[in-house]
Amino acid sequence: MSKKALSILMRARMRPNSNSNHSVSPLSLTNAVKQMQRHRNSREGQSAGGASREENSASIGSGSSEREFMHVRASMDSAVSMNKTEFLDDALNNFSEGYFSFSHENRRKLLLLLAREYDLNRSQVRELIKQYLALELPADKAQVSEEEGLFASFYRIERNLRHALKPVYEVLFERLNTHPGGLRFLSILRADILCILTEENIASLRALDSYLHEKLSTWLSPATLELHQITWDDPASLLEKIVAYEAVHPISNLLDLKRRLGIGRRCFGYLHPAIPGEPLIFIEVALLKNIAHSIQDVLEDSPPIPESETTCALFYSISSTQPGLAGINLGKFLIKRVITLVKREMPHISTFATLSPIPGFMQWLLSKLACQKRLAEGEMSQTLTEGSNLTFYEKILKPEEEEALMSLPKDLAMGQTGMETMFNLLTSTSYKWIHSSELVSVLKSPLMHLCARYILQEKKRGKALDSVANFHLQNGAMVERINWMADRSENGLSQSAGIMVNYVYRLGHIEEYAHSYFSNGEIHASSDLHHYVEQSDKKQ
Amino acid sequence: MSKKALSILMRARMRPNSNSNHSVSPLSLTNAVKQMQRHRNSREGQSAGGASREENSASIGSGSSEREFMHVRASMDSAVSMNKTEFLDDALNNFSEGYFSFSHENRRKLLLLLAREYDLNRSQVRELIKQYLALELPADKAQVSEEEGLFASFYRIERNLRHALKPVYEVLFERLNTHPGGLRFLSILRADILCILTEENIASLRALDSYLHEKLSTWLSPATLELHQITWDDPASLLEKIVAYEAVHPISNLLDLKRRLGIGRRCFGYLHPAIPGEPLIFIEVALLKNIAHSIQDVLEDSPPIPESETTCALFYSISSTQPGLAGINLGKFLIKRVITLVKREMPHISTFATLSPIPGFMQWLLSKLACQKRLAEGEMSQTLTEGSNLTFYEKILKPEEEEALMSLPKDLAMGQTGMETMFNLLTSTSYKWIHSSELVSVLKSPLMHLCARYILQEKKRGKALDSVANFHLQNGAMVERINWMADRSENGLSQSAGIMVNYVYRLGHIEEYAHSYFSNGEIHASSDLHHYVEQSDKKQ
Repeated sequence: MSKKALSILMRARMRPNSNSNHSVSPLSLTNAVKQMQRHRNSREGQSAGGASREENSASIGSGSSEREFMHVRASMDSAVSMNKTEFLDDALNNFSEGYFSFSHENRRKLLLLLAREYDLNRSQVRELIKQYLALELPADKAQVSEEEGLFASFYRIERNLRHALKPVYEVLFERLNTHPGGLRFLSILRADILCILTEENIASLRALDSYLHEKLSTWLSPATLELHQITWDDPASLLEKIVAYEAVHPISNLLDLKRRLGIGRRCFGYLHPAIPGEPLIFIEVALLKNIAHSIQDVLEDSPPIPESETTCALFYSISSTQPGLAGINLGKFLIKRVITLVKREMPHISTFATLSPIPGFMQWLLSKLACQKRLAEGEMSQTLTEGSNLTFYEKILKPEEEEALMSLPKDLAMGQTGMETMFNLLTSTSYKWIHSSELVSVLKSPLMHLCARYILQEKKRGKALDSVANFHLQNGAMVERINWMADRSENGLSQSAGIMVNYVYRLGHIEEYAHSYFSNGEIHASSDLHHYVEQSDKKQ
Repeated sequence: MSKKALSILMRARMRPNSNSNHSVSPLSLTNAVKQMQRHRNSREGQSAGGASREENSASIGSGSSEREFMHVRASMDSAVSMNKTEFLDDALNNFSEGYFSFSHENRRKLLLLLAREYDLNRSQVRELIKQYLALELPADKAQVSEEEGLFASFYRIERNLRHALKPVYEVLFERLNTHPGGLRFLSILRADILCILTEENIASLRALDSYLHEKLSTWLSPATLELHQITWDDPASLLEKIVAYEAVHPISNLLDLKRRLGIGRRCFGYLHPAIPGEPLIFIEVALLKNIAHSIQDVLEDSPPIPESETTCALFYSISSTQPGLAGINLGKFLIKRVITLVKREMPHISTFATLSPIPGFMQWLLSKLACQKRLAEGEMSQTLTEGSNLTFYEKILKPEEEEALMSLPKDLAMGQTGMETMFNLLTSTSYKWIHSSELVSVLKSPLMHLCARYILQEKKRGKALDSVANFHLQNGAMVERINWMADRSENGLSQSAGIMVNYVYRLGHIEEYAHSYFSNGEIHASSDLHHYVEQSDKKQ
């Protein structure tokens, strides 16, 4: 099969468009206020509908853009309010096509309008609430029939209230979900909403997002997702998605892609029937003799080991393709199903492990170091007058690490304390520390033990602070090993000083580990990992 | 492919089990009251939980049945309350298997328990409602930020209220929907609920049914249904379903089934991915030269016409297989999709028609005749003192029909009026009127014109009173012809005095007709049909 199109594509690498560069004009904010006022007015049954509509139109800007906006807005309104199927498909098509052709600013305006003018009929909700509060719970000794009658009133008003509390945009979402291409469109709508929310935190839009998120979670339940092995025989239109969306270790050229689908490699994706030819999430697997220590070993391993000699399936990359599905855990069952599939096809594989990034390590470490530095400065200047700061002050380095850092020649490292020196080294431009063997050897010990601490002990609401750690732990993995200089790419250095981690899925223990992590935050780890942390605990 | 199993099956015809014969013990009603009381107690935070539970168990009856009930109840509770996936599948399996093994009485008890003890946390709903009422809508001239803040409170409480108003059993439904076999199980649960509701009208169970109905409607949207042509090459396990569920014209033997899938015939079904091998609804089609006048012509047409000579596709039977999906319009898009498919494969087919039963005609006619008879008697005894009755009195026969009925010899027919005579003839045992050519010729005129009136003019809430008429009219069909002696089976005689109707789907007018029927109840009909009604209108 010729992959000409793909090859062309590879030269000009495709990435999903980011709209976040567009600026938001202050004009639109004024409109937003007017819209909200009009919205409120219409809800309250006051006049001003016609007048404010014109006023609003007039402030939009150029006439043709305004007409275009009004046209799409009208098709959206039809798609919501139409009662019969006859023109509904047309309305939905017009709406989605019009929306796709919109500028970022018009999309923003339309989404705000949807969020504000298509939410609830609040006066209806209040009316029902009053009826509800007027009901009294039946007395203890009432007759069955009376009791049934009273409960019937509860059920009736609760049902009506349930319906009244559904925003009007629910109809649009439901209709799009069953319309060809609609689910994909909804995912794009949500990506736009999330993008706008990073610019401005608008309550109505947040409510729209949260509602759409819930809906999408229901529609994309694991039962609706099909596990598909992606191979070189798949259509170029699907493979280009893999190239475009590989988020962990970018695919550099056509040969690289072919290798990732060839001997000793597997790639699996979840497809949804309503979004054909485009996996929502995919996972890349390498078949190896042992658990790899570095991503270079995986990506550059050439020629590959004959598959019959392999014993380890290494998950080295998981990427989701739809920014609009953020917050929906599609990977939850993917790993389990891939393990089952690989185990069935290749019984000689006995180890299922990952080679994973630690995306939050450096961010956590640097803020920790900066914070301690500030506390230390405060301590010195105020000479213990504010003892409270001391409780937050923590020597995060072992004495010998502190010593080694402080005894570095001054041309290599500057700092009043070991922590300050470390902070300065790690934030130096172009990661120049990794080019000095002396610096590397001095930094290795503190970075490794602090990394183990970060993964095993730093938590938020009882869950691992690191998002990838949390993902694998809640899937039932254990922490097996952390690897020094495992990802020397710029991305790897900036995320985790080049450290990577192997999580291992131990067959027969997956459910147990997932359960203990879920119920009391317990993180299973190898003795190696515990060793890093215990050593430093003892020394402190 | 050998159809041995099917052949065996045909001898002992399978029908879906009806549970409606089981009696309901008065004991269970007492339990129901106790349960409701316990329910209320626990909601109100009072004690008595443990005590009433024992008391309740004690009254159930035999120990082993009680243990069995408690076991399934416990698995249902786990299926609702379990937070992790690890044992959820087991709990769902235990619950559904246990439920299947239950007697009608145990099913009834469990469903009532589900309806009453797993609905809402009403005190939480009340708490949120109080918070909601405390909010005030923002004043007109408020600042954007304040306004946003206020709206944020609305959105937050509305969202919480939405969640609080979801019954606890929603979780069970959602989980079953994504569990293998769960959707089918839910359809059986609903069939049982509907069956119990025909025995007793229990408010909590009605609420459960209405909630499940809504859920099923969403999950079974046309987008999730796959159109499948059913052929003799399909597995016997699927074909046995066709035999079992054919509701309109029962399949009499294996040869009959083979003919309905052979030359000149088509059968299409809607399948749902979660209920494999079992169409939810299926439609049988005959390819003919002209629109058939009688079902005998269709079922006994042998040998069939060569398909290349046919011009008409006749839909002669539509059956749904799941009593638990009652009220969910699965056929809505089926006919449209079948028409598109047939037209594409056989461009020589230009007419799409049905040969349909008129299930409500005789019931309507007999109650009309009985009512007029009672009114006439009242009129005579009270000699016009109560004139109000007169407004309901109506001469539904034409003068010449009245005359012909009254001049029948007394050994053939008895009655003081034509209507009474007609009533007596139509309700005589074994439909003996159809064996007398004299009676048949006298009855034909009034039955045909009243049938046309019933289909075209008798409505309920603006829709055709007859359910099959309403089904085809809302799908966009028109009424083409009514056929005398078109179904001489006992079923056909009891439903509609043997009359059947041809609805025609006119390509290019389907959407238009559906719309005008939907928006103002307009029924499109041929001039023949109108003729029947106009004649009688003039004469009155």
